[in-house]
Parts: sequence; C-alpha cells; structure tokens
Amino acid sequence: MYAVILAGGSGTRLWPRSRQKQPKQFADIIGNGETLIQSTASRLQGLVPEDQLYVVVGEQYAALTAEQLPLLTPKQIVTEPSGRNTAPAIGLACIHLYQRDPSAVAAFLPADHVIPDRASFQRALSCAAEVAATGYLVTLGITPTFPHTGYGYIKSSHELAASATAAQPVYAVERFLEKPDQRTAEGFLAAGGYFWNGGIFVCRVDQMLAEIERQLPEVYGCLQQITAGLGSTDAATILTEAWQTMPSISIDYGVMEGACQVAMTPLNAGWSDVGSWDALADVVPSNAEQNCIAKGETLTIDSQGNIIYSERMVALIGVSDLAIIDTGDALLVGHKSQMQKVKNVVEQLRNQGRVELL
Amino acid sequence: MYAVILAGGSGTRLWPRSRQKQPKQFADIIGNGETLIQSTASRLQGLVPEDQLYVVVGEQYAALTAEQLPLLTPKQIVTEPSGRNTAPAIGLACIHLYQRDPSAVAAFLPADHVIPDRASFQRALSCAAEVAATGYLVTLGITPTFPHTGYGYIKSSHELAASATAAQPVYAVERFLEKPDQRTAEGFLAAGGYFWNGGIFVCRVDQMLAEIERQLPEVYGCLQQITAGLGSTDAATILTEAWQTMPSISIDYGVMEGACQVAMTPLNAGWSDVGSWDALADVVPSNAEQNCIAKGETLTIDSQGNIIYSERMVALIGVSDLAIIDTGDALLVGHKSQMQKVKNVVEQLRNQGRVELL
Repeated sequence: MYAVILAGGSGTRLWPRSRQKQPKQFADIIGNGETLIQSTASRLQGLVPEDQLYVVVGEQYAALTAEQLPLLTPKQIVTEPSGRNTAPAIGLACIHLYQRDPSAVAAFLPADHVIPDRASFQRALSCAAEVAATGYLVTLGITPTFPHTGYGYIKSSHELAASATAAQPVYAVERFLEKPDQRTAEGFLAAGGYFWNGGIFVCRVDQMLAEIERQLPEVYGCLQQITAGLGSTDAATILTEAWQTMPSISIDYGVMEGACQVAMTPLNAGWSDVGSWDALADVVPSNAEQNCIAKGETLTIDSQGNIIYSERMVALIGVSDLAIIDTGDALLVGHKSQMQKVKNVVEQLRNQGRVELL
Repeated sequence: MYAVILAGGSGTRLWPRSRQKQPKQFADIIGNGETLIQSTASRLQGLVPEDQLYVVVGEQYAALTAEQLPLLTPKQIVTEPSGRNTAPAIGLACIHLYQRDPSAVAAFLPADHVIPDRASFQRALSCAAEVAATGYLVTLGITPTFPHTGYGYIKSSHELAASATAAQPVYAVERFLEKPDQRTAEGFLAAGGYFWNGGIFVCRVDQMLAEIERQLPEVYGCLQQITAGLGSTDAATILTEAWQTMPSISIDYGVMEGACQVAMTPLNAGWSDVGSWDALADVVPSNAEQNCIAKGETLTIDSQGNIIYSERMVALIGVSDLAIIDTGDALLVGHKSQMQKVKNVVEQLRNQGRVELL
C-alpha cells in the first residue's frame, strides 16, 4: 500500500498555536511530543513502507515538511503552487504514483487528524486496501459517538461480498450527506448505519484518475499538462502554469459523491479532527479533577472541566469549563463551549494588520 | 519634610508577578511603566527634597532599590538584616534621621501602595506634617469607599485646634480598631467618622523615638546599641548582632495605639494597597466592555468584567469576571472573587520545592 498525506490546510481554528508559518498539522496540538503530521506518518508504520509514503503540501511548507519528516526523500514531497482544495491535490499525487506504479493502491489521509487507537486504524485501513484493490473507492466511516452537526455523514447500505474474507465488515455506500442540523443528526444516530465522513479513503490510483477524468474533466486536463512535464527540466514551470487554471474543488463533492463503486468500512478508534480547542477533551484523557491538560504543568484550586494547553506553569483558582491556550506571544482564554469563535479573533487580528500574530 | 519609604515586605498575594527575587513593590503592578516603589518616590516630588528621602529595605533588596531609585545615595538606603515588622524598621530609620536632624519631621510610607490622585495626597501629607511639627503623630485616614473587612479602621473624634490654619481638617483619634467583620464594617460606614488605616503617618523623629522608648523598651534597647555603632567600621556587625534580639512588632500595635498625641487627617485620593489582584479594578479604569486592562494588549469577544495583566496579546472569548495574570514563566487564571487564594498556590509551589517559581 502507498499512502498520501494531505497537508494543504492552514486552518485558523486552533489559533494561537496554529499559525500561517506553522499551521496546525505542523504543531504538537495534543501534547504528545509529535506534530500532527508526524503522528499521521508514524501511525502508518508497519502498514506502508517508508518509501511509499507521500505528502502533498503547499510550496511554502515543503521545507517544514522535510524537517519534520526526515524519512521522506524530496520526490516524496509533492508541492502545490497554491491551495485548490482536495481534488486537485489528490489528482497531483495520483499522477506521481501512477508513473511509479499504475496499479498502486493508495490511502489518502488528512495530516491533521488524531486517531489514538492505532491498531484499530491499521486494521480498518488494511481492510479498505484489500477491497480497494478489487476496484472500489473505500472510505473509512467514523463510528459516530454523538450527533455532531459539524461533519458530513455517510449512509451505509448492504455488506459487500468482498467483505467476507476481510478483517472487518465493508459496506456499500448508499450516499454522502452534507452537515446535518441537530435534529437530523439525532435521527441519524437513532437509525444507525450512519457514519462521519472523516475524509480518509483508499483506492487504486488508476481508478481515481479515471474518476477524475470522467467527473472533473477540467481538473484532468490540467493534470495531463502536468504529467507531460514530469521529469523534464520545465516540470516546475509547467506545474505553476497548469495550476493557474486548476479549479478548486473538494474530492467529496467532485469525485466521491458521484463515483461508481464506493464502499465504506467503519473506523472506531477515537478519531478526532481537532477542529476546535474544545475537541482536545475528546482525545486527551482528563485528570481526577476533570481537567484536560494537553500540555503544561498545572496547579488547580477549586477548578474543574478546564482544557489547558500551555508552555508554562498554569495556576487555576475557582474556574470551570475554560479553554486556556498559552503560546509564546499570545494567550487565549475562552469558555470551552465558544471556541468556534476563535476564527473571529483571527479575523479581527487580520483586520488590524497584526500579521505577526496570524 | 523627610520621608521614609518602608520597603520591607515580600508579599505573595500578587504572585506570579510578585516574587521572592522581585517582590511587589519592585514590580510594575498597575502597568503605568513604574514599579510601585518608584511611584511612591515620585509621588513625593515637590514635597520632599531628593536628599531627604530614605528607604528601609531588606539587605537582599538594597541593590534592586538602588537600581530602581538611582536618585538615592547609599546613605539613603537603610538596610535591615531581616524582617522584624514595621516598628523596628521605623525605629532604625529614625536613628539615622535623628543623627542628621533631631527635629526632623518625617513621613513614613509603605512602598507598595497605589494613590492615583497625587495632588490630594500631597495636600494631606503636607497638612499632616504641619500638625506633626507641633508634636502629634499624624496618621492619614483613608476615606472608606465600602465596608472593607480586610483593613484596620481609625475612629476620629473632635477636630484639633491646630487644624484651623491647615489646608484640610485634622482630627483627634479616638481609637484604632482591628479588622472588623462585615456587619461591624457596615456599621462604621453608616455611622461616619471611621477611616481605613493605610499605615501612612507623619511625626517628629524625636517624638517617635521617645514613644518607642516608652512603649517598646526592648526595641529601644536594640536601637541604642545600633546608634552607638553608627559611623564606626563595626556598624554593620553591631547592627547584625543587635538585630538578632530585635522583637518583631508592628508600629500600629506597638506604638500608634498607645501613643500620647495621635491625630488623623483624611486622605481621599483613590488609595489602594493592591492587596490582591482583584484590587487592580479599583485603581485601573475599566474600558467600555468593563474589562480592566492593567497591562497587555487585549482582544475580547463577549467578555466582560475581567482583569488582565499580561506580557503578551490576550484574546478572551465568552468569559466574565476572571483575573488573568500572565508572566514569563507562570500564568494565573482565576475567578476575581477568589484571588485571596493566590497564597494557597504559592504555598503549594513551596511545598513542591518549586523555588524557581516563588
């Protein structure tokens, strides 16, 4: 199996730790001593040979990627001239992999997710690879733990015949669903057979390229130009030019929803996309006082239910349900139920021209 | 007029800004760019000639004092071998002043108070000096703004005749009262004629020494030994030896309460002893969102009534009534009503042997 880590995002939702110069995936968010992209890579150890691991990343982060993942050779770091969402990024990775091995089966994985249970993850991914080799686009369906309204959902249907010999069940996909409202989400969980779309999937590279050709001919056209230049001295120039006309579109909307043979296998491994600071409490165990200390030394008096990520000693007195995120040049203190407003903070800083804090 | 700044304390109530190496009085607590002792000195400008300003301070802080108040000559920094409360400190200052000018009138002022209205302060102090010259111990009575239970009170009685020519009224003192309970404090404010004891007073140096001789003969005995050594090469040794038998006692309890001629003149100048972080809100104006920003840049969303002292950018989201104190190596976040528990934090750190954080 090959693997492609998608490291193109530059999210602001984990400010002040996630910055333009060091987006979330290049930061140690859960305090385990690894950055998220490092964890994403090490999570594949034993399943994907080191030389079959690729990263797609913005040009400006190529050096940071090489620094954080020294196992990668320069060829394994595929750079995008600019962000065009996931379909072009995946297409770009596919033409590189196709050149190397037209029948390659590859897993595509966001760089910034947290998946604590590595054994379950590897079992799900290798099962997906097995079925993908037979001609399916196999997505991992995250077993939902509550009616989240911030994720897309996948509705499964019958179990596939290919599933019989696999390590875990694999289902046909009935359809992909947009982010639901609260009531709809509750209905999904009550009904069963609905999973979160975590954006992790496995497929044959030739099949992915065929789907892009069929469903996204403009993207495919650009990829063809880039392919023609691969290996030549003009490769970079051709890439930059082709990229200027590359449409921006997601793989979910552009390919998965309309693909011919889509399957799903469940992932029940404590997955989180750590989309906001309060999600830390889902992936970092809380202590006896119900405080979740991702990073930093803490001394608490009459304080419960707080989330702490700090680079220094933090003392708490009589406070509850706060998220306290403390970095070298900026400190964020908020009620943990309102951490989605971090983007408003970043927006205000941008409006004020405080580029050094973005 | 002479002035003696009492800089002997090493309070822990303003941790993490107040530290053993740099106690409160040597820190910029209200974010005005001056340390508290610097403000205390500059508040006397125009009233006390520079060469008549003295500081009594622990030996270990003599260098810090000289650094922060470069106007002082070494003779103006009177060092104590160890802390023995206010009566010995004041006695020690008095024997130095007496040598220079037996009829000196001196003001004694804690180094760590905040008094925003300098004009009112100088008027009260010069009025006190005028009456002190006639043979009174004149204390400043802080006009109370609410029934505080953390201060001692002064009950005034009739206006003094000496008051007639003074810039503001001066009263006889009926008595000094210990910290009251809530109900008693409310009674004081309802009755009127009660003032907070801020520990600022003015008197003739010879009179203070006479009161110490009469009321605190042990202290006086030690002071006599020290006086005998003054100017000799053995002065430091004699001081150290005498100080070993020096009792520890406050000027209020040891002298003021039993003194023969005690007067009081009101001080209504926004005084605060900044005894805990929540007191910052009394001396630093709040902004339109009712947040009190003593130091630091702040960006707030849906947040009111917070107190901020920070060395970096602070973003607040959906939080109210917090005190957030952010220094280089430690961060304190607490509900502002519970800031008296800061001492418990310091105690826990001490028990853990975390001397670098004390």
